[in-house]
Amino acid sequence: MAALHELTAAEAARRIRAGAVSPSNLVAALLKRIDAVEPAVQAWVHLDRDAAARVAVQRDIEAREGRFMGALHGVPLALKDIFDAAGLVTTAGAGPFAHRTAAADAASVARLRAAGGVVLGKVTTTAFAFLDPSPTRNPWNPEHTPGGSSSGPAAAVAARMAPLALGSQTVGSVLRPAAYCGVVGLKPTHGRISTAGVVPLSWSLDHVGIFARTVEDCALTLGLLAGPDAADPLSSAAPLDDYVIATADPAPPRIGVLRALLERATPEMATHVEATARALEKSGAFLADAALPSSFTGLHDAGGLVMRAEAAAWHAPLFARHAAEYPPKIREALEAGRALSAVDFLAAQQHRRAFRADMAPVTARFDALLTPTVGAPAPKGLGSTGDPYFCAPWSFTGLPAIALPSGVDPAGLPLSIQLVGSAFGEARLLAAAAWCERVIGFDAVPRL
Amino acid sequence: MAALHELTAAEAARRIRAGAVSPSNLVAALLKRIDAVEPAVQAWVHLDRDAAARVAVQRDIEAREGRFMGALHGVPLALKDIFDAAGLVTTAGAGPFAHRTAAADAASVARLRAAGGVVLGKVTTTAFAFLDPSPTRNPWNPEHTPGGSSSGPAAAVAARMAPLALGSQTVGSVLRPAAYCGVVGLKPTHGRISTAGVVPLSWSLDHVGIFARTVEDCALTLGLLAGPDAADPLSSAAPLDDYVIATADPAPPRIGVLRALLERATPEMATHVEATARALEKSGAFLADAALPSSFTGLHDAGGLVMRAEAAAWHAPLFARHAAEYPPKIREALEAGRALSAVDFLAAQQHRRAFRADMAPVTARFDALLTPTVGAPAPKGLGSTGDPYFCAPWSFTGLPAIALPSGVDPAGLPLSIQLVGSAFGEARLLAAAAWCERVIGFDAVPRL
Repeated sequence: MAALHELTAAEAARRIRAGAVSPSNLVAALLKRIDAVEPAVQAWVHLDRDAAARVAVQRDIEAREGRFMGALHGVPLALKDIFDAAGLVTTAGAGPFAHRTAAADAASVARLRAAGGVVLGKVTTTAFAFLDPSPTRNPWNPEHTPGGSSSGPAAAVAARMAPLALGSQTVGSVLRPAAYCGVVGLKPTHGRISTAGVVPLSWSLDHVGIFARTVEDCALTLGLLAGPDAADPLSSAAPLDDYVIATADPAPPRIGVLRALLERATPEMATHVEATARALEKSGAFLADAALPSSFTGLHDAGGLVMRAEAAAWHAPLFARHAAEYPPKIREALEAGRALSAVDFLAAQQHRRAFRADMAPVTARFDALLTPTVGAPAPKGLGSTGDPYFCAPWSFTGLPAIALPSGVDPAGLPLSIQLVGSAFGEARLLAAAAWCERVIGFDAVPRL
Repeated sequence: MAALHELTAAEAARRIRAGAVSPSNLVAALLKRIDAVEPAVQAWVHLDRDAAARVAVQRDIEAREGRFMGALHGVPLALKDIFDAAGLVTTAGAGPFAHRTAAADAASVARLRAAGGVVLGKVTTTAFAFLDPSPTRNPWNPEHTPGGSSSGPAAAVAARMAPLALGSQTVGSVLRPAAYCGVVGLKPTHGRISTAGVVPLSWSLDHVGIFARTVEDCALTLGLLAGPDAADPLSSAAPLDDYVIATADPAPPRIGVLRALLERATPEMATHVEATARALEKSGAFLADAALPSSFTGLHDAGGLVMRAEAAAWHAPLFARHAAEYPPKIREALEAGRALSAVDFLAAQQHRRAFRADMAPVTARFDALLTPTVGAPAPKGLGSTGDPYFCAPWSFTGLPAIALPSGVDPAGLPLSIQLVGSAFGEARLLAAAAWCERVIGFDAVPRL
């Protein structure tokens, strides 16, 4: 039987509901795990020990009385430190000039708490969710980056310090660290989850994302988070699905392989993804090549431009007072953003929308498109959080994407495939991912 | 009994359906009227005599057989020359470098034709629907501007050359010429009518609008035009109402007087609007003062900035080749738009959205807000199309607004009140307008 800190969110929820595990014991086990491995990983910004223990006792009492708040009753979770949690400081991974005590929970945090989730605390983000690294290390090898910007969520879930974490992706900030850390990372469609109460980087591109160790956990959590929110004008009223039911008994999916992207990965990663595709096909998946529309050309530049302009607009008041205190990469991006013209911004937004429109018939043909999540495993050193090239197109289109751990390379670092779905088609994407997850059977664990 | 060219669209449709008027005779009467008054008004860019006569004969045959295409069966109409009509040149009021033969109807044109409308031809627009004037004259006094940018639609409807016309408003281009020409001008909520196939000026602000001589005609036409369109990503799926039923038997409305705006009009116009308000109240309307939110400050600058930036983005390819051929006002605006920064554009969009949010509780309290449509009657001369100050806020928020002719000044020029509604609340706004229209009883006609 798995140690308590190794339980997935869904397993933990089931055992709590069955009376086999108490939320207090689960929180205690995770705090013990954190004490053991945090010195090597450095994923936490603020571990809210007392509050977590206190809330867990409350969940204990309710559970004993047969009262369950929701699908995550008593399940601990971690928050990237750009999510507001009432009463805690949101640091945004930046200096004291950026710190702010949150008066209220972010919409997503409130929804998980309302479902019984227990907030353990805040985990690291790169500064303002951009490229300046956090001190967090990769649980598979502390000399390597965990990726970013959601460094803490990926590392904490990989290191079994929390079964579940909230992160965010503007370019590649959920799927890339998930890939580098060997966990599942889901970024649903832009607008699917409210970003209210989350420090923005670029509102056209910002997505709330989920870190977990199984597709089931992502489906469970998405079901709680998805849906419109009056506080986020970009949140969508698109119809919702029951994501847990969708993933429970998936059929062999139709998978479109974006071969043009494979060629951008290292030969080793390309070979791994090809081998994974063949294994999926051998198990019954329907594979075909999928082509990128011509509007893919220049998309990365267009998305980067939108991001810099919107980041510069949002940061303007803070940057006016504290430019010198900003770390170098975000500072450079904001300065570049300030220099952009409105006309170039509008052309970039148009390019992005054209690519999204061009992708609609491509995603409609398949349950998922297959690409590498990253071009290579986590790079050595903490100076760079790696290359978001393969994740960026799906942030720039807002299409849902999921990273699945798919192997370990000879150096002991995780490999990952990325599956991309159609707009607001998370049910279909998650079903495909659940099917692939079973075939792949990834069960490696970082040694800590 | 009114001459055929004096019929409103709804009256014409009713008589055609009753067999009392034939579409051919109606078109012939309007062509005769055009021959008589067009030399003085100069509203037409392209009068499509033969096609209109041919289509009218077709509508005759169908009517005799009891087959009616829709609510506008056999009713003639005019199109501002930024609307595509299949096979006709769209000039956009600019030089030959901008001319383009339309392959297909604009979405709105297609809907009116599908309802049996007969396109008489194209009427003038200022160059690219901006401020450089067209040669059109005000039917009430040829030495005065008809307003712009929808100069032709307003003048043609006022001069009884067409009962109905399509125009567009980005700042004040429907309601202002409607006011100057003594006709009814409706600009519904942004996104209510597809702008597909209409030459854009600024897509965040561009609205298709309706010119007619009664609220009933506006309601009838809006019912045909409203609704989402896959070809216009900004068109809305907000629920529709039966606008004709809504306006048939209106109750006394609750009217909020935006007194702060009254102070911006000439004393004569302010006095007229106050007197009109008192007359409405005396007849049973519920009047109260309504306040503008503080975000009104700077709104005109913000909206103007958005317009210039988007116009510069859309015109970029054409402007690169033909800058010298652009008339001076649009050229200056495009040059200013090119120089704007992305950050300033985003701040302006944010200002605009904040004002829209702040207005929601104000519009919710009333069936309509009352303001002057224009600060003064149509100015003398054709060099300026007048000041859009009073119309601009409702373009920048996207709120629905309607101009009602409300009197004639001592110089013989029409006066007008503007009623503003809540987002997608056209039914309530039109009901209020229909009630006010009956109380006001405007029946002056330009002498031509």
